[in-house]
Amino acid sequence: MVALGVVIGRVVIQDVRPRTPTGAFPAKAAVGEPVTVSADVFRDGHDVLGARARWRMQGERRWNDVPMRETGNDRWEAVVRPPAAGILQLVLEAWTDRLATWRRDITVKRQAGQDVEVELEEGARLLDEAATRAPKRDRSKVDAAAATARDATQPVARRVAGALEADVVEIMTGTPDPRDLTRVTPPPIRVDRRRALSSAWYELFPRSEGGFEGAAKRLRAVAEMGFDVVYLPPIHPIGHTARKGRDNTLDAGPDDPGSPWAIGSEEGGHTAVHPELGTIEDFERFVADAEGLGLEVALDYALQCSPDHPWVREHPEWFHHRPDGSIKYAENPPKKYQDIYPINFWPDDDGDRVALWEACRDVLEFWIGHGIRLFRVDNPHTKPLAFWEWMLGEVKEAHPDALFLAEAFTRPKMMAKLAEVGFSQSYTYFTWRTEKRELAEYLTELTSPPLADYMRPNFWPNTPDILGGPLRGGTPAAFKIRLLLAATLVPSYGIYSGYELCENEPASEVNEEYLRSEKFEIKHRDWGRADSLAPWIARVNDIRRRHPAFAELRNLRFHASRNDRVLAYSKTTGDDVVLVVVNLDPTQPHQDTLDLDMGVLGWPWGTPLDAHDELTGESYTWRTSTPYVRLDPAREPAHVFHLRPAK
Amino acid sequence: MVALGVVIGRVVIQDVRPRTPTGAFPAKAAVGEPVTVSADVFRDGHDVLGARARWRMQGERRWNDVPMRETGNDRWEAVVRPPAAGILQLVLEAWTDRLATWRRDITVKRQAGQDVEVELEEGARLLDEAATRAPKRDRSKVDAAAATARDATQPVARRVAGALEADVVEIMTGTPDPRDLTRVTPPPIRVDRRRALSSAWYELFPRSEGGFEGAAKRLRAVAEMGFDVVYLPPIHPIGHTARKGRDNTLDAGPDDPGSPWAIGSEEGGHTAVHPELGTIEDFERFVADAEGLGLEVALDYALQCSPDHPWVREHPEWFHHRPDGSIKYAENPPKKYQDIYPINFWPDDDGDRVALWEACRDVLEFWIGHGIRLFRVDNPHTKPLAFWEWMLGEVKEAHPDALFLAEAFTRPKMMAKLAEVGFSQSYTYFTWRTEKRELAEYLTELTSPPLADYMRPNFWPNTPDILGGPLRGGTPAAFKIRLLLAATLVPSYGIYSGYELCENEPASEVNEEYLRSEKFEIKHRDWGRADSLAPWIARVNDIRRRHPAFAELRNLRFHASRNDRVLAYSKTTGDDVVLVVVNLDPTQPHQDTLDLDMGVLGWPWGTPLDAHDELTGESYTWRTSTPYVRLDPAREPAHVFHLRPAK
Repeated sequence: MVALGVVIGRVVIQDVRPRTPTGAFPAKAAVGEPVTVSADVFRDGHDVLGARARWRMQGERRWNDVPMRETGNDRWEAVVRPPAAGILQLVLEAWTDRLATWRRDITVKRQAGQDVEVELEEGARLLDEAATRAPKRDRSKVDAAAATARDATQPVARRVAGALEADVVEIMTGTPDPRDLTRVTPPPIRVDRRRALSSAWYELFPRSEGGFEGAAKRLRAVAEMGFDVVYLPPIHPIGHTARKGRDNTLDAGPDDPGSPWAIGSEEGGHTAVHPELGTIEDFERFVADAEGLGLEVALDYALQCSPDHPWVREHPEWFHHRPDGSIKYAENPPKKYQDIYPINFWPDDDGDRVALWEACRDVLEFWIGHGIRLFRVDNPHTKPLAFWEWMLGEVKEAHPDALFLAEAFTRPKMMAKLAEVGFSQSYTYFTWRTEKRELAEYLTELTSPPLADYMRPNFWPNTPDILGGPLRGGTPAAFKIRLLLAATLVPSYGIYSGYELCENEPASEVNEEYLRSEKFEIKHRDWGRADSLAPWIARVNDIRRRHPAFAELRNLRFHASRNDRVLAYSKTTGDDVVLVVVNLDPTQPHQDTLDLDMGVLGWPWGTPLDAHDELTGESYTWRTSTPYVRLDPAREPAHVFHLRPAK
Repeated sequence: MVALGVVIGRVVIQDVRPRTPTGAFPAKAAVGEPVTVSADVFRDGHDVLGARARWRMQGERRWNDVPMRETGNDRWEAVVRPPAAGILQLVLEAWTDRLATWRRDITVKRQAGQDVEVELEEGARLLDEAATRAPKRDRSKVDAAAATARDATQPVARRVAGALEADVVEIMTGTPDPRDLTRVTPPPIRVDRRRALSSAWYELFPRSEGGFEGAAKRLRAVAEMGFDVVYLPPIHPIGHTARKGRDNTLDAGPDDPGSPWAIGSEEGGHTAVHPELGTIEDFERFVADAEGLGLEVALDYALQCSPDHPWVREHPEWFHHRPDGSIKYAENPPKKYQDIYPINFWPDDDGDRVALWEACRDVLEFWIGHGIRLFRVDNPHTKPLAFWEWMLGEVKEAHPDALFLAEAFTRPKMMAKLAEVGFSQSYTYFTWRTEKRELAEYLTELTSPPLADYMRPNFWPNTPDILGGPLRGGTPAAFKIRLLLAATLVPSYGIYSGYELCENEPASEVNEEYLRSEKFEIKHRDWGRADSLAPWIARVNDIRRRHPAFAELRNLRFHASRNDRVLAYSKTTGDDVVLVVVNLDPTQPHQDTLDLDMGVLGWPWGTPLDAHDELTGESYTWRTSTPYVRLDPAREPAHVFHLRPAK
C-alpha cells in the first residue's frame, strides 16, 4: 500500500512571511498597518493556480478572505490590515484553478485556429462543477455559461465567449477548488497598538526640572514640540553606598545626587519613588497631566540594585556571592561599577528563581497599576532570554497594550533575538551609521524581511550615554540632520533632552558620553533660548503627523543620486508619497541630481510632479525624474517633499 | 508558579546549517565531503561559551564529538567528514564555559594590576568542579591547578599561571558544563556515495552506434576521455502511432526510428528493451563492459507513454480522458505532442493512484535488479512533488546507493524543491549563463547556502534538446570554453555525444535544438576525426581527477579581475589549490590583471606562488597577487593553475 507524500500536498505553499527566524514566536504588526502576507505557491506542471489568505483576530469566529496574487517567480501575496490589537491568525490556501487553466488553453488554441469542439464540452463540465461551489446567488450565471458552451446552435466564437464571460471568471476566481487544495497555518502575528510602530519619544530627567511638579511644567513644551511619549529614567530611590559623583567619579560629595540607575535605598526599591522627585501621588498627577497633553509616560525598567536596595537584605540569594562572603558588584574587567549589584537571574535553587522572576514581574504590575503601559528596558541583553520570553508573555497576556523598548546596543544576533522573543521596539546602531552607503545598507536591512517582520527600530540620535559622531562638538546643522534622519527614516525615534539646545560637549576625545553627564548631576537649562531648535523640531514632528507614510516601517525606498553626501529616500502609503533629501554634511552646501525611481513612487515614467517642501513651504514642478537639488545646511540641510502628480 | 521559558534555553542555538528551507527533508552530503556544520550560538551577558557538534551515522551507537569554534558575529562552526553513506545524525550542544570566563577576567584584572586574591579562590572552586567532569586520567592535573591557585605560600603570579596552565585549558575546553547546557537536534543529513557529488557524464544514443553491441565498442573511448558515467536515453520499444519523423516532423516514414522518449509499443513498455538495440542480455553485457572500464551506466526514467504502450490498454485509468472518449496527448498549447500520452499521476480513485505509483516504482526496481543505480529523470517537474517524495523515499530506503538526476529546466522554486524532496543532482540554468557577471552570480548562488545545502548542480554545456548560446555555430574554442567551465566550476558535469566533434548546427535561428536532431534519426559519426576534442577532453578530466579541489561543490571562490571577458576562480580542498582563468570570448585573445584574494587561497599576503598550468604544462612564479594573464582562444582559452607557495 502506498503511503501518501506526508509532507507535500499537490500545491506547495512555503516560506510564508511575515515570520520570525525560528517561527516559534509571533511576527509583528500594528493596528491598521498594511501587512503583506506572502508565500511561494507552485505545483507540478503548468496549470493555473488560485490562492487566498484567510485571517481573523483570535477570538473571532468568522474568517476574512483576501485573494493572493502572483508577483513573479512563484511568489504570491495579499495585503491584510489588522483592525485591532491582539493575535492575528492566518491560514493560506492554494489550489489548482482548473477553470482558469482551461480558459488559458482554449484561448491560445482559438488564436492558433485549432478546433475546440471537445474543449468546449470540457469547459462546460468544469463550469457544471464550478456551479456547485459558486455562491448560491451566482450559480445561475455559471450554469448559463456552461449551457452557452454546449449550445451547438451558436457559432463557436459565441460559445467560447459565453464560457469565458468576465462575470463568471470573477465569481470563480478566489473560490477554492477542494481537489488539490493545500492549506497551511503559519505562526500567528501579534498586532500591537499603533504606538508600537510609530512614536516620537522625549527623554527627560525629572530631577533637573525640580521633580514631578517641575517636570509637569515642561510637558506643554514637549507636547508643543510634537512628541507623543515622555520617557523618564528610573524614578526610584538612589543608593548611597559607593554612589558615583560628578562625571562618573568614585568620590561622591554629600550633594551629589547619584545615578538614577543605582536603584534602591532604605527608602525603597523598584516600586518606590525617590522622595526628592515627589510622592507617588505627585507621579500620578504628572502622568495625568501628560495624558491631558496627548503624551504617554514611559518608565525605565532597569533590573539591577544598589547595595542599599531592600532586595539585597531580603533576598541575598538573588545576587552573586564571592568566596569572601561579599556580593559581587557589576564589572566589565578591568572596569568596576561598585554602586550596582547585578541580579543573578538564574539562582541554583529553582524556587529562588521563581520568586525572583515573580518579583520582577510584580514591579511591572505595580507600575501598570499606576497607568503605565510603556517601558524602556535597560540592558535586556544581560538578562536571560528565557526570562524575557516568560516575562513578556506573562505581562502581555494580562495587559496586551503593554509595550517594551529594548535598550540593547549589543551584537546583531542578540538584538534580533530580543525582538523575536517579544520586545516591541529596539534601540539600534543608528547612532553609529552616518555615511550615505552605510545608512542605506543598514536601513534596507531594518525595513525589509527578515528583520522587519518582527523587529521595530527606534532611532535615537542621542541618549544620556551617547553623544555620537557628528553631534560631538556639532553645529545646529548637525543636530538638524541627525534628528531629521531619525524622524523620517523610521516611524519611531526619540531624543534626550538638551538636544534642542544642541548640547555637544563630549566627556573626552575617546569617551562617547557627555561632559558633566546628567546621569550624575542635576542640570539647569535655559529652555527659552532664542537659538533653541524646539520650533524646528515641532515643524518636523508636525510633518510626521500629517503624512501617514512616515508612520510606516516597511515602505522605505532609496533613490539613486550622484553626490555621496546626499541621501534621498521616499516613503509611500496609499496616496501619500513623501521624498526626503538630506545633505549629510553639516559643514557646507551640496548639490545633486537625483535619479528618482518612478516605479517605486507609483507613477508612470514621465509623470510631471509637484514637489512641495514641507520644511520651507517652497514648491517646485518637476518635469523630469532627475531633478536638481541644492541643500545649504546653514539654511535647511534637507528637503521633505510631499510629491503629487502635477495638475 | 513560574513556567520555564518553554522555547529558549540559557544558550541560544539557532539557524543550524546545512538544512533544507523547510527542514522537513534531509540536507545533503557525500562520503568524505567536508561538511561545515554551523549555527548561531550566544547567550545573555558576556560569558565565554563552549559548543560542540556530535554526530554519528544512523545505526551506530557512539557519538563523535567535534568542538565548534566562533568565526565571528556569534556564528560557530565545526567540520564533519561523513565516513560512509547513510543518514548522518547531528546534535549540537552549547554551554557557559565558566572556567574560560574566569580565565579571561582574571587575566585582564592582573594586567590592570588589580588584587585577585578572591578571584584565585573563585578559580580554585571552578577547577574543583571541573575536575569532577574531566576525563578520569586528567583529573589529577585539574586538581593540581586548583591546589596551586590556593597555595598562599606561592607568589600570586605563580598561582595565577598555575591555574591557567595550558594543559588544563585544553582538557576542559570542549567538555560540556551540564549547567546552562542547550542541546538541539537538527534534521539529519543524507550522506550519498561520492558520485552523487562528483561525476562526469557522457550521453550517447546506443542506436546510433548499432545497438548495445556497437555502443559497447564506444565505451573504451568514453572511458579514455575520462568520463565515469555513460547515460543512455530511453532504451525501450518506441511507439509507432503518430511517430515523429526527422527534425520533429509529423509524417514519419517507414525507416524513421522515432523518439526514444515515445516509450512503449506492442513489444513492451518501461521494462522492455527495444529489439533493435538488442536483448536484455545484450544490455547486461553492455553494463558489465562499462563497469569493467570504470563507467557506471545511467538510464533515463521518463514517465510517459506512447499511444502503443501496454499501460494504455491495461490501465486506461492512469491517463487523462477527454469528453469524446479519446486519451489526451501531451500539449503545450498551441503545440501538440501526439506521439506521447502524459500519465495522470493523481487519478480520482485512490486505489488507481496506489497501483500507478507502485507500477512506476516497479519500473525502477526492475532496472535496479539489472544493476542500475543511476537514473536521469525526465521532466520531473511535471509530476507531483508528493509522488517524488514518496518514490525517492521508498527507493532510497531499499537501495541507499540509488541516485537521481532531475532534468528540470524549470522555474527556480520548483528546481530547488525537487532537490529538497530528494533528487541527488539537478540540471541547471548553466546553459543560459554565459557572461562573466551572470556566471559569477549564478555560481555563487549554487555553491553557497541555502541552495548548496541540498541541491547539487550538474552542468551540461549541451543536451540532445539544447544547443545553446556560444555553441550555436560555435568554433572549437567555444566548445572548449563551455566544457572547461562546466568541468571546473562544479564537481558534476556532462556532455551529449557529438560535443567532441563540435557539432554546432542549430535547428533554426530561434529553435534551441539541433538541426537533424538525433532524437529523431540515427547518426553516423566519424569519431576518429583528427580535429576531435577527445584528447583535450581527456586532459581536462584527468586534471579533474588529479585535483580533489574539483570534486567539491562548496569551495568555489571568485577572484576580481578587470577584463569583463575574463573569469577567474579558485577551489581549495586541504592542500590542493587550483585557480582557473577563462577567456569567455572564443573570438579573440584577452589579457587581464587578476586581483587574487590571498585570504581565500589560504596564504599570507605577499606569499610568492608557483603557478603550474595543467593544460599547457607551463609554469610561472608570481611574486605578486596581481599577476598578468593573456589567453588566446586559438591556442588555449583557459589556464588551469595548480598553485603552491614558491620554494
